[in-house]
Amino acid sequence: MRLSRYFLPVLKETPSEAQIVSHRYMLRAGMIKQASAGIYSWLPLGFKVLKKIENIVHEEQQRAGHIPMLMPTIQSADLWRESGRYDDYGEEMLRITDRHNRDMLYGPTNEELITDIFRAHVGSYKDLPLTLYHIQWKFRDEIRPRFGVMRGREFYMKDGYNFDVSKDAALHAYNRHLVSYLRSYERMGLQAIPMRADGGPIGGDYTHEFLVLADTGESEVFYDSAVTDLTFGDRDIDYDDVAQCQAVLEEFTSRYARTDETHDEALFNAIPEDRRRTARGIEVGQIFYFGTKYSEAMGATVQTADGKSVPVHMGSHGIGVSRLLGAIIEASHDDKGIIWPESVTPFHCGIVNLKQGDAEADAACDALYQSLTALGLDPLYDDRSERAGGKFATMDLIGLPWRITVGPRGLKNGVVELTSRRTGESEEMTPEMAVEKVAKIYAPRASM
Amino acid sequence: MRLSRYFLPVLKETPSEAQIVSHRYMLRAGMIKQASAGIYSWLPLGFKVLKKIENIVHEEQQRAGHIPMLMPTIQSADLWRESGRYDDYGEEMLRITDRHNRDMLYGPTNEELITDIFRAHVGSYKDLPLTLYHIQWKFRDEIRPRFGVMRGREFYMKDGYNFDVSKDAALHAYNRHLVSYLRSYERMGLQAIPMRADGGPIGGDYTHEFLVLADTGESEVFYDSAVTDLTFGDRDIDYDDVAQCQAVLEEFTSRYARTDETHDEALFNAIPEDRRRTARGIEVGQIFYFGTKYSEAMGATVQTADGKSVPVHMGSHGIGVSRLLGAIIEASHDDKGIIWPESVTPFHCGIVNLKQGDAEADAACDALYQSLTALGLDPLYDDRSERAGGKFATMDLIGLPWRITVGPRGLKNGVVELTSRRTGESEEMTPEMAVEKVAKIYAPRASM
Repeated sequence: MRLSRYFLPVLKETPSEAQIVSHRYMLRAGMIKQASAGIYSWLPLGFKVLKKIENIVHEEQQRAGHIPMLMPTIQSADLWRESGRYDDYGEEMLRITDRHNRDMLYGPTNEELITDIFRAHVGSYKDLPLTLYHIQWKFRDEIRPRFGVMRGREFYMKDGYNFDVSKDAALHAYNRHLVSYLRSYERMGLQAIPMRADGGPIGGDYTHEFLVLADTGESEVFYDSAVTDLTFGDRDIDYDDVAQCQAVLEEFTSRYARTDETHDEALFNAIPEDRRRTARGIEVGQIFYFGTKYSEAMGATVQTADGKSVPVHMGSHGIGVSRLLGAIIEASHDDKGIIWPESVTPFHCGIVNLKQGDAEADAACDALYQSLTALGLDPLYDDRSERAGGKFATMDLIGLPWRITVGPRGLKNGVVELTSRRTGESEEMTPEMAVEKVAKIYAPRASM
Repeated sequence: MRLSRYFLPVLKETPSEAQIVSHRYMLRAGMIKQASAGIYSWLPLGFKVLKKIENIVHEEQQRAGHIPMLMPTIQSADLWRESGRYDDYGEEMLRITDRHNRDMLYGPTNEELITDIFRAHVGSYKDLPLTLYHIQWKFRDEIRPRFGVMRGREFYMKDGYNFDVSKDAALHAYNRHLVSYLRSYERMGLQAIPMRADGGPIGGDYTHEFLVLADTGESEVFYDSAVTDLTFGDRDIDYDDVAQCQAVLEEFTSRYARTDETHDEALFNAIPEDRRRTARGIEVGQIFYFGTKYSEAMGATVQTADGKSVPVHMGSHGIGVSRLLGAIIEASHDDKGIIWPESVTPFHCGIVNLKQGDAEADAACDALYQSLTALGLDPLYDDRSERAGGKFATMDLIGLPWRITVGPRGLKNGVVELTSRRTGESEEMTPEMAVEKVAKIYAPRASM
C-alpha cells in the first residue's frame, strides 16, 4: 500500500480520554475511533491487525478439529428464559424490543443458542465428539466502559462449545482447547499463563483463565515464577491423543498461578520464596467445563452406546479477539509507539523514501515495493512529501517490525538501510538483499 | 474434511415454512438454521460459502483501490439526528435504549458514521479520492421477514462510501464501483444486470441496482435482451483510468434495463420487439451517487486546491453478501439440490466411498483425500457407513461441483469415477488422473 492512497489518520496529540498505553497508541496510530461510549470503529490499520488475529484463532481452532460456524448477534429472549439466565443476567445484557414487541437481546455469549442448534440436530453418541465455534461481535453493556478495546461494550470474541457423551470425553475437549489456546497466543507473540479461575455459581475445578502479564492489567495475579519459563514452542501435537493433551494440561497448570479471585495465601506461601511473584494481568481467554448445566435445562440429550438417553456434557471456551490488540500493545511497545510481532503486524515492512521526488530514490522505492509485493509481502510505502523525521515518527508509532530507508546518499553507494523496530538496529545492504532478508523473516510464518 | 467428523445436519423432509427453492435447499443442506424470525445461524456448510463470497468481495474491492475497515453494529442515535434520518427511518430501524437511557440503534446502513469519521480526520483535497468500505452485519426490522436469507432481518452487507472533491471525481468512483461489482458477480458465477434504479427522495440519474434474473425474484424487470449478451470477462482494467471505467459504464448501462420502479413504457416499446423482455429479478447490489446530502447536513468539508471549503461529494455502494447465497442457489440448482459454481463451493470436491470398511476402498479414499489436501484443495470425504444411494443424495443436495466415487469394482480395474454435478456426466480414470483433473479445474481460481 502506498501511504498517499491509504487512510492512516495518525494523531499528533495524545487524546486525553485514553488512560492506558494501548488505548493511546491505538488512537494515535489511527487504528480505531470511538463511535460512542465503549463502541469503536476499526480504521483500516486496526482492521488489518484484527483480521490477522482472527485468522490465527481460526487456524488453530481448525487444527484442533473444531468446526467454524456463525451465530447471529441478535437473539430471542425465549431461549434465555429456558436456561433461566434471562432474569439473572442483569443490566449488562442489552435488551431490545422489536417492532412486534418481542423481547430480543444482543448476545453477550451463546450457550443457549448453540444448545438449541445441538438439540435440534444431534441425537446420538455416534455424532460426538463435536466442538463448534464462531467468532462474532458480542455486546455487554458495561456501566463504565474504558481502556479502549480492552473493556469495550461491543467486542469481538471467539466462543467455542464442546459436546461430549461423558465427563471424561468433555475433559479431553477441555485439554484440546487449552493446547490450542497456548499455540494461538504464542503465535501472536504473547505469553498467556493459564490460571485457575473462579467457576462462579457452578463452581468446579475445570476452568482456567489465560492472563498476559502487564502493569495495566485489571487483575492482580499470584504465581510461581516457574510458570513463565514454560513455552509450547513448535512441538507436534496429536489433538486426538488423550494422554498427550492431558500431559500439556499438567505441564502448564500444575504450578501455582491464580488471580485474586481464587488466590489461596497458604498454597502461595508453600512456593519457595524466591519463586513467588505478584503482578498484574490482562485476561485474554477462558476455558470452562460446566457439565450438564445447559443440556439439562434445555433438554439436549444423546443416546449412548447402551441405548440410554443422557444429557450431553458441555464446556465453553472463549478468546477475546478484539481485546487481544490491546493486550499485545500493552506487552509490546516503547515510548515511540507500538512494536508489532511479525505474526500480526498490519504491514510486513515499511519503506521510507527520504527524498520524495528525487528520480533515483523514487525509482528505488518503486522497485523495492514491487519486489516485495511480488513475493507475496505487504509493504507500506511512505511516498508522501514529508520530511524524514515525520516519516520515521509515523513508522515508529504504527510499529511495523521492519523498515527499509531509501535515500539519495545511500543509493550512491548502492545501499539502503534495513532497521528493526524492536532493537532499533540498522544495517546497510543492497536493495536486493533487503528484500531477501525481509522475505526470509516472514517465510516461516506462511507455513505455520 | 471427513464427514464423520463434520457437522452437516441434512434434512430429509422439506421444511414447510420455506416457500422458495434457495430457502428450502439451504435448510435441507444444513447450511442455516432459523434462530428467530428473519434471523439465522450459519451452520458450518453455510458459513464456508458466506466466507468465500465475502473474500471475493474483499478482493475485488481492494483491486479497485477501495480500503477495508469495520464499523460497529450498534450506533448512537445522535448522528442520525444530525442527518435528519432518525425520525424518517420508521419502524424498520431497530431502536435500542442502553442502561444509561441513551438512544442507540442497530445500524441498517452507515452513511452517518462514515461521514463522522471522515469529517474528524480529513480536511484537504490532497487526501482524496478516498473510498472506505466494510462488510458488517446490519439489521432491518422487516415487518414480514421471509425467503430465508433473501429477506432476513439480520443480514451481512458490504457497504462502501466514496469521498471526492467534485461531482466528476465522484462519478469516476461510481464507475469504479460498477466495474468492481460486475467482476465480483461474474466471479461468483452470476450474471447481475445493472438496471436504472429509483433515487428515492434524492432523485438523480446516478443509481443502478444489480439484478440477477430468477423466477422467484421480488422485482419485475424490463430489459433489452442485448444486455444479457454482455460479459465483463477477464479483460484488464486500470481503475485509475477515467475513460476506461466510463466506457464500461456506457457499455453496460446504455441499453434499456429497469425495474418496475423506474420502468418507462414508451422507452421500452422503442426496443425492437424481438428483444423486449419481461422477467423477475433478485437485487444483489446497488450503487448510488448522492452528492452532498450527508456532507452538507453533517459539515464534512474539504479545502480545494484554490483554498475554498466545499462539502465533499459522496456515494454509497452496497452488495448483499448473505443474500447472494440465496441468489446463487436460485440461479443454479436442479431438482436434486444446489449446484455451486467452483468459485464459491464450500468444498472443492466430494469423495464417496461406496464400501466403507473395505480395506482397499478405504485406502484409496484416504490416498485421494491426502493427495487433494496436499495440493491445497479442500475435499469432503463421505466416510460414513451409509449405503451409496444416501451418500449420492447428500452430495447432490449440498451441490459440490465434482464428486469422485470409489468402489471395489472400479479399483479392480484401477479406476475411480469423476462426476460433474452440473452435467451429471461421469468419467472413469485412475485416482491420480482424478486428482490432477480436479486440481486443474481449480488452478485458475487460485490466481484470480
